[in-house]
Amino acid sequence: MKYLVTGAAGFIGSSLVDRLLEQGHEVVGVDDFSTGLLEYLVNAKSSHFFTFIEGDLRDPSLLADALTDVDAVFHLAANADIRGGLAHPRKDLEQNTLVTFNVLESMRQAGVKRIIFSSTAAALGEPEVFPTAENCSIPVQTSLYGASKMACEGLISAYCEGYGFEGYVFRFVSLLGPRYPHGHVYDFVRMLRADPTCLTILGNGQQRKSYLHIEDCLDALLLICEEKRAAKGSRHCFEVYHLGASEYCRVEQSAGWICDELGLKPEFKFTGGERGWIGDNPFVFLDINKAVTAGWVPKYSIEQSVRETTRWLSNNSWIFDRR
Amino acid sequence: MKYLVTGAAGFIGSSLVDRLLEQGHEVVGVDDFSTGLLEYLVNAKSSHFFTFIEGDLRDPSLLADALTDVDAVFHLAANADIRGGLAHPRKDLEQNTLVTFNVLESMRQAGVKRIIFSSTAAALGEPEVFPTAENCSIPVQTSLYGASKMACEGLISAYCEGYGFEGYVFRFVSLLGPRYPHGHVYDFVRMLRADPTCLTILGNGQQRKSYLHIEDCLDALLLICEEKRAAKGSRHCFEVYHLGASEYCRVEQSAGWICDELGLKPEFKFTGGERGWIGDNPFVFLDINKAVTAGWVPKYSIEQSVRETTRWLSNNSWIFDRR
Repeated sequence: MKYLVTGAAGFIGSSLVDRLLEQGHEVVGVDDFSTGLLEYLVNAKSSHFFTFIEGDLRDPSLLADALTDVDAVFHLAANADIRGGLAHPRKDLEQNTLVTFNVLESMRQAGVKRIIFSSTAAALGEPEVFPTAENCSIPVQTSLYGASKMACEGLISAYCEGYGFEGYVFRFVSLLGPRYPHGHVYDFVRMLRADPTCLTILGNGQQRKSYLHIEDCLDALLLICEEKRAAKGSRHCFEVYHLGASEYCRVEQSAGWICDELGLKPEFKFTGGERGWIGDNPFVFLDINKAVTAGWVPKYSIEQSVRETTRWLSNNSWIFDRR
Repeated sequence: MKYLVTGAAGFIGSSLVDRLLEQGHEVVGVDDFSTGLLEYLVNAKSSHFFTFIEGDLRDPSLLADALTDVDAVFHLAANADIRGGLAHPRKDLEQNTLVTFNVLESMRQAGVKRIIFSSTAAALGEPEVFPTAENCSIPVQTSLYGASKMACEGLISAYCEGYGFEGYVFRFVSLLGPRYPHGHVYDFVRMLRADPTCLTILGNGQQRKSYLHIEDCLDALLLICEEKRAAKGSRHCFEVYHLGASEYCRVEQSAGWICDELGLKPEFKFTGGERGWIGDNPFVFLDINKAVTAGWVPKYSIEQSVRETTRWLSNNSWIFDRR
């Protein structure tokens, strides 16, 4: 198969590209390096089955030629900085909603109709039911990031209904694992490198969060996309899957594992409040039964993921010196 | 109070403007006449309390000065042509999603924080529960129009959470009444003017639809906005209300009332199928209990609305000669 992966130099994108190449597929990667890293493509670039396009997907013509003979698009490119959304409200709209529209339009013009999209638990706002299933109530958005991702889901489902697209939307919790480039583990390790005696934790540390290992995530994406290709025929070729761990932890617990892994015993300072920032969700816990029923077997506990991520960051401290 | 109304020359917008002026409010109206009609503003333009701005809201600076001292914005401007969406996929994105973003950003810059937004039952896709309540499952979109309106809802709720906005979203069924400019009654009357012996009905005519009279709609908008202004204090100043009739009819029934009102007995020809077109929703029936509990008393039956609309179209046949 030939796949196009947007955000190919990102944490998830580059991991997916490597996995697809390993499986013998041909891959076209697209990235603008706004947050992606050239370092993550070293392996892929050594393959004859990999083509890379550097460019900004806000340019509607960027994909015009790249989609020739492509079987499916993994659209992962996005602004993923939830917390910074309020400082630049146009960013999520442009880099997520408009870029997704551009990808869909390019696909339509090229006759490519299969899209796999990385949505997010953050698009569910603050749900009332836990674990939260795919068919939960229409959310009240608490972040511009979540709003933009839900807008993308809507565009994709409308393209499925209107133009016969086949769409798979995956709402992820936060991912962890090798190449993890931002988030609380990153922040905590960075702060502890600067001051090993004290760790400032946003909020009261009691936020309940679920985290997913990148390998478990990729397993689900590839399994379900392969499975579903065989099982067509429903009126809507549009499916949403929740991907997360089958458990949750408290941010304070995660901080404990990180410190333990680093051999540190810092004082914890909490900034207070149920939420670390506006748009921080105090409880994230997805119902993953639909994906599990489709055959997905997640392998990592949250503790394993947090500890492995901490070790990877320690062994790859160059990542803290970017830009 | 001073209100800004976008889409002020439209069916709903111009009716709202007249009502607000009647109540003694100051009104700034904005429209680009892409679908709005100058004829609908004749009354408003005679008032000293009305200011009109002709312009396209895709221009982000259009509202920069218009928002001075405005208490709240009724954002009604939109592309409302659901059926044409697939022929020009960029239109709903630009005229609905992007324009709503521009309105929100202009409001934020001007310090205006109260927005009333016209969403739609079409943003619910094809729900599984009837009558459909505000907190129904996340929809699978069946039209680009619905997708764009749900994207607007998401933006508004994110602005409420992030910037302290106060947002009221009303999901309407199709409206009827004086100034009604497009939709099935319009199409049927137009076709019967051309050929009184035969009426072509898209689909099998068994589509179940709910319709709301413009006066009932305006009652709800004004009542709930006034009510809620007093009852603040919840963490989210964001509320969604469904507005529709407490009943539904079949398209064939509606055609019968229209013909009866016109004194005609044409042959009905059905194009067949459950849906009249891609994105046509075979069953629209909203649960309006939330609005009713807030004190709203809708007065018109669907039959009354259809008959009154037919009479209005007959008495205002100039509307068929536009453009």
